[in-house]
Amino acid sequence: MSADHPASTNPTAANPTAAVLVIGNEILSGRTKDANLPHLGETLAAAGIPVREARVVPDVEAEIIDAVNALRAKHSYVFTTGGIGPTHDDITSECVAKAFGVALELNPDAVARLEAHYAAGQLNEARLRMARIPAGATLVDNPISAAPGYRIGNVFVMAGVPNIMRAMLDGVLPALQGGPPVHARTVSCELAEGTIAAELGALQDRYGDLEIGSYPYFRAGYFGVSLVLRGTDEARLDAATAELADIVRRLGGTPTVTLGAKG
Amino acid sequence: MSADHPASTNPTAANPTAAVLVIGNEILSGRTKDANLPHLGETLAAAGIPVREARVVPDVEAEIIDAVNALRAKHSYVFTTGGIGPTHDDITSECVAKAFGVALELNPDAVARLEAHYAAGQLNEARLRMARIPAGATLVDNPISAAPGYRIGNVFVMAGVPNIMRAMLDGVLPALQGGPPVHARTVSCELAEGTIAAELGALQDRYGDLEIGSYPYFRAGYFGVSLVLRGTDEARLDAATAELADIVRRLGGTPTVTLGAKG
Repeated sequence: MSADHPASTNPTAANPTAAVLVIGNEILSGRTKDANLPHLGETLAAAGIPVREARVVPDVEAEIIDAVNALRAKHSYVFTTGGIGPTHDDITSECVAKAFGVALELNPDAVARLEAHYAAGQLNEARLRMARIPAGATLVDNPISAAPGYRIGNVFVMAGVPNIMRAMLDGVLPALQGGPPVHARTVSCELAEGTIAAELGALQDRYGDLEIGSYPYFRAGYFGVSLVLRGTDEARLDAATAELADIVRRLGGTPTVTLGAKG
Repeated sequence: MSADHPASTNPTAANPTAAVLVIGNEILSGRTKDANLPHLGETLAAAGIPVREARVVPDVEAEIIDAVNALRAKHSYVFTTGGIGPTHDDITSECVAKAFGVALELNPDAVARLEAHYAAGQLNEARLRMARIPAGATLVDNPISAAPGYRIGNVFVMAGVPNIMRAMLDGVLPALQGGPPVHARTVSCELAEGTIAAELGALQDRYGDLEIGSYPYFRAGYFGVSLVLRGTDEARLDAATAELADIVRRLGGTPTVTLGAKG
């Protein structure tokens, strides 16, 4: 995408954007590899809500509050992951409540969900922390381990454990107002990036409504490049893809064209 | 770590911090899973420069400039990854030059490295873009594909391809001013997080100089939790680890203690 593409950073009702806020020391220390951003990025783009920014912050109150407020002012939707469990380092809900300037309250519906989930005597004080929800929030179902996420304003507070986060996302997707879905095509070939760069840049200039990215790879002993075209208009996408395949052939390569961005 | 731990956000000469800026649409779309943040996080923590923040921004000039300037003002070191190749979507160097308010110049040393790397006639205009370096920057070696990274101020501009990024990092590590290395211990057990949460929080209160995190897992059919202790004082770390193992036993669990954070 050209650097000044107008749709890329300014969300509108017709072209919403999302931001992801990953919360947790374990991601910054390298102990845990984040798996939520890729899933959110793919799923939300397909729903017409491209993720345009992500941040990773530690379990530090001021950092979380600042990031929540910066991102919710800038994007149509914000998805936080992590920090809503029962231990002392789970401080996301305190921070989100402070970011919105509302009280953090024991939510009766959330308590009822935990009571139904845990065996008698198991719902201790630590686990009850997971039922403290910012005032005015709407709960998000957790079909796996009961403790809910929630939505407040344009912010969705989700679990960090990937299978729980995915289940929560599946539950909230129908309520989101998406723009036109973003489609992708990939042209892969064994040409070097530097060989095709000039023609690729000229193609991007001719198709300013599409986003064209160049991703080199080394696979099974061969260097090559995957050229990914994205856009909402499939006819334009197909036209640019055909032109690009011709360019690859003209430069002596053998293009492999696939639907989607994974080729 | 407690939310107000003083060392966690404010870098000092004795306790430097790092930030990572991942640049690229492909990370936000979910096409590519970032592999650089975990490596930077682990490597820099071992060098006494914990990563305390990360951001992912698209290939959009204003976003990159804003992020570079926000992060370099806040942290001892910033490491950017991505966007320094030969194609039209590689705009990191233009943006870094603008962030620092300096010219982007064809760097003779960088040109010489590319000339030595490419066969006669292969160093075309697109590839020469990789020798455009902000004025005043110092080159960072790329032992794999020649096109250098660079350091300007406290910002290191690195490749996005993981093996090249790692090689560049290996080259710059000796020049960094690290604080005391951060060590880690892990106590794993099959107790639920909610069972151990109260005692774990009390342990964190007693060891405010350590950072204690709780990471639930589901492995080979069993739920459990990895409790990770981090700090620079190994005697304190060992004392807290021994206390935590006792807590696990008292609660009916079987602790497995390992060095490092991966247990």
